[in-house]
Amino acid sequence: MNQRGSSVFCKASLELQEDVQEMNAVRKEVAETSAGPSVVSVKTDGGDPSGLLKNFQDIMQKQRPERVSHLLQDNLPKSVSTFQYDRFFEKKIDEKKNDHTYRVFKTVNRRAHIFPMADDYSDSLITKKQVSVWCSNDYLGMSRHPRVCGAVMDTLKQHGAGAGGTRNISGTSKFHVDLERELADLHGKDAALLFSSCFVAHEFGAITFVDEVHAVGLYGARGGGIGDRDGVMPKMDIISGTLGKAFGCVGGYIASTSSLIDTVRSYAAGFIFTTSLPPMLLAGALESVRILKSAEGRVLRRQHQRNVKLMRQMLMDAGLPVVHCPSHIIPVRVADAAKNTEVCDELMSRHNIYVQAINYPTVPRGEELLRIAPTPHHTPQMMNYFLENLLVTWKQVGLELKPHSSAECNFCRRPLHFEVMSEREKSYFSGLSKLVSAQA
Amino acid sequence: MNQRGSSVFCKASLELQEDVQEMNAVRKEVAETSAGPSVVSVKTDGGDPSGLLKNFQDIMQKQRPERVSHLLQDNLPKSVSTFQYDRFFEKKIDEKKNDHTYRVFKTVNRRAHIFPMADDYSDSLITKKQVSVWCSNDYLGMSRHPRVCGAVMDTLKQHGAGAGGTRNISGTSKFHVDLERELADLHGKDAALLFSSCFVAHEFGAITFVDEVHAVGLYGARGGGIGDRDGVMPKMDIISGTLGKAFGCVGGYIASTSSLIDTVRSYAAGFIFTTSLPPMLLAGALESVRILKSAEGRVLRRQHQRNVKLMRQMLMDAGLPVVHCPSHIIPVRVADAAKNTEVCDELMSRHNIYVQAINYPTVPRGEELLRIAPTPHHTPQMMNYFLENLLVTWKQVGLELKPHSSAECNFCRRPLHFEVMSEREKSYFSGLSKLVSAQA
Repeated sequence: MNQRGSSVFCKASLELQEDVQEMNAVRKEVAETSAGPSVVSVKTDGGDPSGLLKNFQDIMQKQRPERVSHLLQDNLPKSVSTFQYDRFFEKKIDEKKNDHTYRVFKTVNRRAHIFPMADDYSDSLITKKQVSVWCSNDYLGMSRHPRVCGAVMDTLKQHGAGAGGTRNISGTSKFHVDLERELADLHGKDAALLFSSCFVAHEFGAITFVDEVHAVGLYGARGGGIGDRDGVMPKMDIISGTLGKAFGCVGGYIASTSSLIDTVRSYAAGFIFTTSLPPMLLAGALESVRILKSAEGRVLRRQHQRNVKLMRQMLMDAGLPVVHCPSHIIPVRVADAAKNTEVCDELMSRHNIYVQAINYPTVPRGEELLRIAPTPHHTPQMMNYFLENLLVTWKQVGLELKPHSSAECNFCRRPLHFEVMSEREKSYFSGLSKLVSAQA
Repeated sequence: MNQRGSSVFCKASLELQEDVQEMNAVRKEVAETSAGPSVVSVKTDGGDPSGLLKNFQDIMQKQRPERVSHLLQDNLPKSVSTFQYDRFFEKKIDEKKNDHTYRVFKTVNRRAHIFPMADDYSDSLITKKQVSVWCSNDYLGMSRHPRVCGAVMDTLKQHGAGAGGTRNISGTSKFHVDLERELADLHGKDAALLFSSCFVAHEFGAITFVDEVHAVGLYGARGGGIGDRDGVMPKMDIISGTLGKAFGCVGGYIASTSSLIDTVRSYAAGFIFTTSLPPMLLAGALESVRILKSAEGRVLRRQHQRNVKLMRQMLMDAGLPVVHCPSHIIPVRVADAAKNTEVCDELMSRHNIYVQAINYPTVPRGEELLRIAPTPHHTPQMMNYFLENLLVTWKQVGLELKPHSSAECNFCRRPLHFEVMSEREKSYFSGLSKLVSAQA
């Protein structure tokens, strides 16, 4: 299978996915950040700062919290104290604030029993309010499936919270072995290997490596991903997946031939030297994989796809700039970091809607967007409420609507490369999409 | 604080700890592993293999499991099929088997209610037997503390199994915020930042960075690590710790000034693009940190240190080659990969004792050892049973005992650099150590 074949995933992984983002975009920036004293020219206290620099130093002094444990300078010997570490860090933060890429994390406790609702603590850690979540990677709500939680709970009771070691030093449980077998079977491979995160060794030349992290659980008859859907799994030599998105837990894995897996297991430093995943999480993941392999999984996937289609159609009909993309994640282009953040903040504080503004470095500068991830558990009514309030906020911050985005390219008039709703599907939702469109 | 000051940790981290091992030892090997087709000269099928190579190919063919999903070769276009990927991987595995560094993971389900006991599934995944575990990083048994498990369970019920996103995209919960505050307080710093594993950015020149991963929870009045014990925390600019060892959960963190933490949070790719830790694990970790800060923590630490001293004394008195090291982990030098594995296997299969043989790449070749980690929950009787059976096995595989290792260096006669038991402490254990020594 070539990469073009899994276009859903390619699009999604390269442009929209914070958690699997190719890191090229930030490498340059990070390299600059870590530049040593010789590169950055912040004047010393002994000097005579003036103009902009003086101004900056004053701002920095004011921004410091009143009580700090210590300044980094305090520990430096006199001979090397010419480099103002504290100011350097403050300056880097200030740069992000100035170009609106500084991130303030929204603090939300997702509620298992009323998915996709959450308690929002962003304004205050003492008072909370209920919000709907529209940007989670828990695409099917599996993190709170009763059988998943039941498996975690039983394992927690029997075996405790942690694994207590690396895989080689007391950190391999039967849950690890069972889950690796289940995952190998899911992808039709000899063997699979679990990682604590989606770190995998790319270390192997011309072999076909396909990253299915956003597709596993969501596509194919058994949830095996795009390869499963397109019937090309035997052509994929190494498949990487995650337990942290559609499967609702945490961790990553690869599946391949037994000799390749055994080689990675035996040689890969990132695997050898890492604390093993807790058995209770693996018990939950095992249950989740099994559920999504079954008829219940197929029902969930159909509902998921239907909700994505409906949501996309509603957004397009309302004239919002939906990025052309066949993914289950719907990007709406804002193309302005400050306004993007403002939309996100307004939706959260006024309308109890949480959709995260995606700014640099997750997307290139100038391509800022809202990334909407409907699940099978978002109702048409919730979508309607979402759209109404997005439109109000959109206009309020000074963004424009197009008269109507059609299901074809505005320039070449060819059909878009993703499936839109059929007339029959539209009627299924009782004209909801048209209704919303008319209100815009 | 300079690195020499925390000699306990230095020793432990560099020589004995798989999970924080400096990776220099394996870099070369890994680089060789990932060598491309042009470097490795395995002959093609079309050629005329003979001698050793022919022999090797025959072995490889025989070692292949009867049913495999596919061979990597099958997917290669004819033009590049000259490189035998499958054989290459099989060869790398074979190399490890030949030099006895091939790892067969012991499969053990640790039992929460009878810590440090576990169900061993290593011989068969169907039948199990109970074994005692002597090599876990769950140093104080916190992974099964009722309050830790209770916190995990409540959070699982309320919020489900996973976090559902990166920290920026719906993956920050109040549990993240609370735990980061608790950890900052533990280390007397402005701020702390959680990581999914002990990955941390080393990105910052002359600032003092101290890795306390094996010391947090175990040293100091509040379990803040060696810096806490020695009263030098304000001198340490960045402290890294883990939630996966003494705290019994999983994940890592750094604590430092707020501007440094905010810079890492805003710029570090390894933080930005990683799925957030599940709230339920953080709730457990928070409870664990709080317990170990309290009087209960101080009791556990005293019992831990006392057990380590007793165990070390017993091993030395019996004439086993205990590596001179003041750590809470006791290394016994075997210096032979094959015999080391044999000792480990025999103890497990015949005597129901699990202590992991530590071979390359965790330790340099020729410095293979057993790494014994007593907890506060290992009883003197268990230690006695352990020692008796280790001695039997030790002789059985052809290893030698010294007449008696004293508490002073065999050459210079100076006292060893770690605390041994006082006479009063020895008497506390009713002469157990001497008893065992006499039996040897």
